[in-house]
Amino acid sequence: MEKPMLVFQTDFTYKEGAVCAMYGVVKSVDRSLEIIDGTHELPQYDTWSASYRLYQSMKFWPKGTIFVSVVDPGVGTSRKACVAYTNDGYYIVTPDNGTLTHIKKFVGIKEVREIDETINRLHGKDTEEVAIFHGRDLFGYCAARLASGIITYQQVGKEYNVDEIVCHEIYDPVITDTQVEGIFEINDPNFGNLWTNIPLASFFDAGFKYGDMIETIIYHLDKEVYHDTILFHKSFGMAKKGDVMIYNNELKKIAMAVSVGNLCKEHNLDFGPDYKVVFKRK
Amino acid sequence: MEKPMLVFQTDFTYKEGAVCAMYGVVKSVDRSLEIIDGTHELPQYDTWSASYRLYQSMKFWPKGTIFVSVVDPGVGTSRKACVAYTNDGYYIVTPDNGTLTHIKKFVGIKEVREIDETINRLHGKDTEEVAIFHGRDLFGYCAARLASGIITYQQVGKEYNVDEIVCHEIYDPVITDTQVEGIFEINDPNFGNLWTNIPLASFFDAGFKYGDMIETIIYHLDKEVYHDTILFHKSFGMAKKGDVMIYNNELKKIAMAVSVGNLCKEHNLDFGPDYKVVFKRK
Amino acid sequence: MEKPMLVFQTDFTYKEGAVCAMYGVVKSVDRSLEIIDGTHELPQYDTWSASYRLYQSMKFWPKGTIFVSVVDPGVGTSRKACVAYTNDGYYIVTPDNGTLTHIKKFVGIKEVREIDETINRLHGKDTEEVAIFHGRDLFGYCAARLASGIITYQQVGKEYNVDEIVCHEIYDPVITDTQVEGIFEINDPNFGNLWTNIPLASFFDAGFKYGDMIETIIYHLDKEVYHDTILFHKSFGMAKKGDVMIYNNELKKIAMAVSVGNLCKEHNLDFGPDYKVVFKRK
Repeated sequence: MEKPMLVFQTDFTYKEGAVCAMYGVVKSVDRSLEIIDGTHELPQYDTWSASYRLYQSMKFWPKGTIFVSVVDPGVGTSRKACVAYTNDGYYIVTPDNGTLTHIKKFVGIKEVREIDETINRLHGKDTEEVAIFHGRDLFGYCAARLASGIITYQQVGKEYNVDEIVCHEIYDPVITDTQVEGIFEINDPNFGNLWTNIPLASFFDAGFKYGDMIETIIYHLDKEVYHDTILFHKSFGMAKKGDVMIYNNELKKIAMAVSVGNLCKEHNLDFGPDYKVVFKRK
Repeated sequence: MEKPMLVFQTDFTYKEGAVCAMYGVVKSVDRSLEIIDGTHELPQYDTWSASYRLYQSMKFWPKGTIFVSVVDPGVGTSRKACVAYTNDGYYIVTPDNGTLTHIKKFVGIKEVREIDETINRLHGKDTEEVAIFHGRDLFGYCAARLASGIITYQQVGKEYNVDEIVCHEIYDPVITDTQVEGIFEINDPNFGNLWTNIPLASFFDAGFKYGDMIETIIYHLDKEVYHDTILFHKSFGMAKKGDVMIYNNELKKIAMAVSVGNLCKEHNLDFGPDYKVVFKRK
Repeated sequence: MEKPMLVFQTDFTYKEGAVCAMYGVVKSVDRSLEIIDGTHELPQYDTWSASYRLYQSMKFWPKGTIFVSVVDPGVGTSRKACVAYTNDGYYIVTPDNGTLTHIKKFVGIKEVREIDETINRLHGKDTEEVAIFHGRDLFGYCAARLASGIITYQQVGKEYNVDEIVCHEIYDPVITDTQVEGIFEINDPNFGNLWTNIPLASFFDAGFKYGDMIETIIYHLDKEVYHDTILFHKSFGMAKKGDVMIYNNELKKIAMAVSVGNLCKEHNLDFGPDYKVVFKRK
């Protein structure tokens, strides 16, 4: 049977040698393993973003693919290191620190095991006393052993209760007779778009349709920071260049953008539960 | 026969999950395909840069390689999605939005086909209603099918006239008895160098030679923003550290740099037809 | 015998086509070669950082791996282009410009050969007159030929004396009865941590132990810029969020960080011999 691929996401950067060292460990376990660069330079220490990026990309990969997520502000403390097995057949090697939030809620986790450091941690190379680089010494190494077939999933370590997995709070949108209210739950850091937690289906159910002009208010810590009536459409290109608009994003959630622009920068906005967005129903 | 490699260039970033999702689609079509990260984080929406980067790198790859270029400000609108086949034997999967400008002019395109979305678009994974991520749902998917041999080039979709390909204007240098005049047509964003549209051969023809000190004037919107007499040589190392100099770049065009410095930042310059550069003949 | 992998580190960026062109050359020499992205966007022209990143990551790779390091401010000048063979069995293809400093001192170089441009430089593709892109035309091409078995190590070019290798000065820590004094020899640009040149073992020998509160003074050009008594521990998580702390880094050297923060940015610090750090013994 073909060995699964390893898809990495980290809050490391290519600008220094950490990714390189981590991949070297993988290739030293088994030269034939295929390493994929998923997402790097996630916002540092941001386990919410780590969780969201897994949710955004995982389902597009072949079943059995092993994801290694290393956003690990608690490295070297008592937080668990684990490998989760999802309901749809993927493995996620990660600190148990909130990174599994979205996959647990929207996909489901069938089984989770704590990595046994006594057998699945790198030895030698002068790494024994190092406590701050589990991406290299634990997660990458353990994932490579699993992918290579050196260990079975059971040999990762002891199973624990899926209910014990550490999760962030997920906010649900609130739909009333007069409005649809959500938060910006994540951004697109490249284009400066903001993605709400409101599913496209809910937006349609509330009566909105492509082509509508929708009164939109954004609050930051309850202070109004944006208020305008803007176009809702399928894609950026339907709006005039430079206009703020509402669109259906790649995960079928309602999102906002500046057409051929950058909403976050031009309007000084960001994501997180402090940002509330309200779309007024007519 | 060996399957061609897929070389990607996008204006996406590794900092979020889009690249990861796109590559997952490719690997789900055919696990054995080889994905190469070409160029990412191109200036957003900049189809001129996309075109230039293809021109800069394509010829160094084995014939038959498939390039996937996703700089797509018009995603979801009526702009064509296409696969071009070049005179020198490469495939380019791209929106037809100016990205083919340089390859069409300097290499030539033998044939171009519009991607038939009814057969070459991803289905399932909850993507049907998504209009804004053709990198994942159309270009990546179609390119993977082509590379894998699932479809032939003819099965991409209907051929259309190469003359219909959308192209940017390309500016030619102007050589007179007294000067050589060009524009900065692109930059090196990493080192802050600026590349003109003046071929080395034309510069030599005009009588300049390595070692010359050349009076150089830069205009921005016809206002003089730089004026000095500077060294023309083969490489940065021939100039004094910190000096502005003229050199022969990797594509044999005349370029300007600060030796061990950053011309764009230090002199507040950029590329585009608004920037005119004049080299005075003696 | 399996062909060695090629691990690249450069001060180039993915944001333009240079990496892509360089990899194309490799794949045109031998399609089957495995290219690994090690470290990119190293600080431009910084051969010290190049040297450090090799030292940081090389030992984790399988023996025989070929590293290609392209930080090359002297490209096109008389600096040597070489391939070094290390005491522990790796190859490094690099300009001989200080990039071999740490590997030479801490690992040892068994043999070094100057690349013979008459046989190991790319021909054709209109590259002959180009003097400024040895990553593409010389280092990448020569490394690919070596990895592929087209040339032996001896056929790289003439051997020269290991003692002639260009090296930066390496500063040693100074330990006295009252203090341990070092420099910040490198940073972690992603998390803003600073790594000293003081080995963990020396720190322990000086009597410090995990859990200690240590009086710490940082000087920039002999001016005191930081002075506080801070925690020394195994990992960031042992300090209070936002606190400056001392820890044991991934290479078992003493380092400083802000827990879940960014020391460099928050305290306006950087690395280099101008920065001296003093830890006071009780």
